[in-house]
Amino acid sequence: MDKNEFRKRGHELVDWMADYLESKESYPVTPDVEPGDIYAKLPDNAPEEGEEFDRIFADFQRIIMPGMTHWQNPAFFGYFPANNSEPSILAEMLMSTLGAQCMSWITSPAAAELEEKVCDWLREAKGINSNWKGCIHDTASTATLSAILAAREKHSGFQINKSGFTGKEKFRVYSSSHVHSSIDKAVKISGIGEENLVRVDVDENFSMIPEALERAIRHDLAQGLTPLMVISALGTTSSTAVDPIGEITRVCRDYQVWHHIDAAFAGTALLLPEYQTLIHGHDEADSYVFNPHKWMMTNFDCTVMFLKEPEYLVKTFSLTPEYLKTDLDEKVNNYRDWGIPLGRRFRALKLWFVLRSYGLEGLRKKLRHHLHLTKKAESWIRADSRLEILAPVNFNTICFRYVHHDLSTEKLNEINESWMSTANATHKLFFSHTKLNDKYVIRWVIGQTDVEEKHIEAAWVLLKEQLHKTINS
Amino acid sequence: MDKNEFRKRGHELVDWMADYLESKESYPVTPDVEPGDIYAKLPDNAPEEGEEFDRIFADFQRIIMPGMTHWQNPAFFGYFPANNSEPSILAEMLMSTLGAQCMSWITSPAAAELEEKVCDWLREAKGINSNWKGCIHDTASTATLSAILAAREKHSGFQINKSGFTGKEKFRVYSSSHVHSSIDKAVKISGIGEENLVRVDVDENFSMIPEALERAIRHDLAQGLTPLMVISALGTTSSTAVDPIGEITRVCRDYQVWHHIDAAFAGTALLLPEYQTLIHGHDEADSYVFNPHKWMMTNFDCTVMFLKEPEYLVKTFSLTPEYLKTDLDEKVNNYRDWGIPLGRRFRALKLWFVLRSYGLEGLRKKLRHHLHLTKKAESWIRADSRLEILAPVNFNTICFRYVHHDLSTEKLNEINESWMSTANATHKLFFSHTKLNDKYVIRWVIGQTDVEEKHIEAAWVLLKEQLHKTINS
Repeated sequence: MDKNEFRKRGHELVDWMADYLESKESYPVTPDVEPGDIYAKLPDNAPEEGEEFDRIFADFQRIIMPGMTHWQNPAFFGYFPANNSEPSILAEMLMSTLGAQCMSWITSPAAAELEEKVCDWLREAKGINSNWKGCIHDTASTATLSAILAAREKHSGFQINKSGFTGKEKFRVYSSSHVHSSIDKAVKISGIGEENLVRVDVDENFSMIPEALERAIRHDLAQGLTPLMVISALGTTSSTAVDPIGEITRVCRDYQVWHHIDAAFAGTALLLPEYQTLIHGHDEADSYVFNPHKWMMTNFDCTVMFLKEPEYLVKTFSLTPEYLKTDLDEKVNNYRDWGIPLGRRFRALKLWFVLRSYGLEGLRKKLRHHLHLTKKAESWIRADSRLEILAPVNFNTICFRYVHHDLSTEKLNEINESWMSTANATHKLFFSHTKLNDKYVIRWVIGQTDVEEKHIEAAWVLLKEQLHKTINS
Repeated sequence: MDKNEFRKRGHELVDWMADYLESKESYPVTPDVEPGDIYAKLPDNAPEEGEEFDRIFADFQRIIMPGMTHWQNPAFFGYFPANNSEPSILAEMLMSTLGAQCMSWITSPAAAELEEKVCDWLREAKGINSNWKGCIHDTASTATLSAILAAREKHSGFQINKSGFTGKEKFRVYSSSHVHSSIDKAVKISGIGEENLVRVDVDENFSMIPEALERAIRHDLAQGLTPLMVISALGTTSSTAVDPIGEITRVCRDYQVWHHIDAAFAGTALLLPEYQTLIHGHDEADSYVFNPHKWMMTNFDCTVMFLKEPEYLVKTFSLTPEYLKTDLDEKVNNYRDWGIPLGRRFRALKLWFVLRSYGLEGLRKKLRHHLHLTKKAESWIRADSRLEILAPVNFNTICFRYVHHDLSTEKLNEINESWMSTANATHKLFFSHTKLNDKYVIRWVIGQTDVEEKHIEAAWVLLKEQLHKTINS
């Protein structure tokens, strides 16, 4: 494709993209396809000769689009959102054109220094201790794994990096019983083992009980095990429960355990000063992660981690082979040493575009709007005597179910699962579920960039219709 | 930013992007900035109120652009390229607009099935065993770490995942002494320890000596250590040396050791049938990784891994918490279970656009052109009696240096370092270096998408001018 054609096709795509963004709510949220449908429509081999862009783009519209889940549809209420925004998309266009690989300062000084600056901006705006330093990762999975590794190496004096596990260390990692799967994955990867992830009891709000944490630590110490790290949640994945950050920090300090705060989804709420009490007392914690790519109108992928002592992270990962050495290595941040992959995209650019285009007030307005819509939906559910809400609505996630005192939990689970499935099968919206105390609940997450009252009203009408059908079937 | 403004700004950016791509060779390859220059130009806090896009974009041009290293400049000859292309950029525009998070089949069926298909296409086109299956990662660092973890878990019967290292396992990983730093990093992360990365001797071409590998394995077995994995290189980072894949596969088979083939950069050459002899005998190896984002005109990030038995990888990573369960989990590929991060971008789309837009013949033509230019540059260097080439030019990387029989290696290293530095200081091109047998060499990598004869001619003139200055100073 020559440069002239690129210009022409680029303009065509911008119009398509703008049309898509204008009409994204008209797309089915989930596609009506069966496993293998798309695969079967694609030829078995790559073409030998290049094809015209018209043909490729027609196939994109004919084959790919009908198989997409439309995460940006305002009626996507599942999981956590991965919301995007116009300024973020514009930044991605520039990033992909520059094609800079930002592993080292020298490989793009502006990217390294903008990364440092936008992390500073976010740290200040969120009320994180101003001595902490930030960096960008792809996902919270990777960032949390990095934190575990830094804790592991700090504790072992970098001996596991050097010689591997000796078996003398019996590390224990603590999290609430509502821990995210990425933490299970990280304790496996790091060689600690899933059995050494201690699931601390939660209270009736699904928040970790600090006394139970302390008991677990003391119990392990008495057994000769080594408490390494506590991962607290500022917003669990199931129900957005908030662990008591300040109290956990004190426990961690007393036992010299690394305290990592996983605020992957809900951390964006700290842009609202009224939510910053949630991290009071975090100053003596060690690390904190949140995903602008979830609720901060920044394209996936973009995770930001803050650390009290980044030197442990850097020492865990840094190794400078001859072919990467430069005479500036002592003076600059080579962010390749702050995480797992060597190569890095220029993700700071989209954070910069988003932060400047919205401004902090603009972001706060969006968040407050989502929280306002959530209060509204919550009030509808609470007013319906057939339904119950099973967890505090701390942010913009409502965990609810149909309930009936004559029916067993098992039967209720079946009904609620069926209810959600039939609602999702309309393809007009999408919910996902979880279980709280073995009870199947539907999660309603209201955080899409352009979600408005009409979308939640339509969802509520549809939910009630489907419930009627489900309980009368 | 409203939708109308997005349309307007999108068109403006496409013109800027097309202009940039047309004029990318006119930008300084590296920026003339000092550490801290860019950081100091950015305000200390995020703006409270949103700013006009004109102002943001003006700052992008004023502050960011002068601080960029222009990886897409055809005179970027350093490291390995991260070349991109017009079809790939167009795909990135669509990906960022759809904003799909492709962790599971259900979260975007088309993305999962297109991923499976384009990996099949690449497997066939590269001559990889047709029973192997592929998946996409962000980088080779992460893919290789994944392979090490799969080997670890296969060997331990998934017991390290479960209970952590007991210290009974003393795993050993083997690679040539020219191993890439990502492998050091991966053995650290996985808890094996850098000391257990055995650097096997290489021959005069910097290729691993299979007999030395076998000796190392037998030696370790005699010591009660456990050979876990061999990582062979199809193109080392320093000099693009090629390890004897078939012979190493036989050694690995004899000792039941996982054989991972790291073809991160040079693997793209396998699209040329005449290079496929390099992987003859790979059928009984276990995994293979290459980076379309290096030399296959596909935007960073995009790594493809192939596996003989992907079930070990999947079993290493899979865990399905309640909130991710679907009733299709047994029937589909949930690629979240094929790697480390939970969240995943829709990277298959850009591979599809690139493969279809170029066609395999179009890609081969590009590669052959780069290889032809490399032969040309190699011939110029060989004809200059002051210079020597210190490694076979297997692909499109030339490792050369100034040499003089009166001077010590140390002195020559100084001269060559100075030569490269002064050449790079013109900002008209960019080379990086390595050391081969302690000799400082300049690496000339000719793989930018639009590199032409005029660019290597200009580089050669500049190199000779700077050499003249360096040796006469």
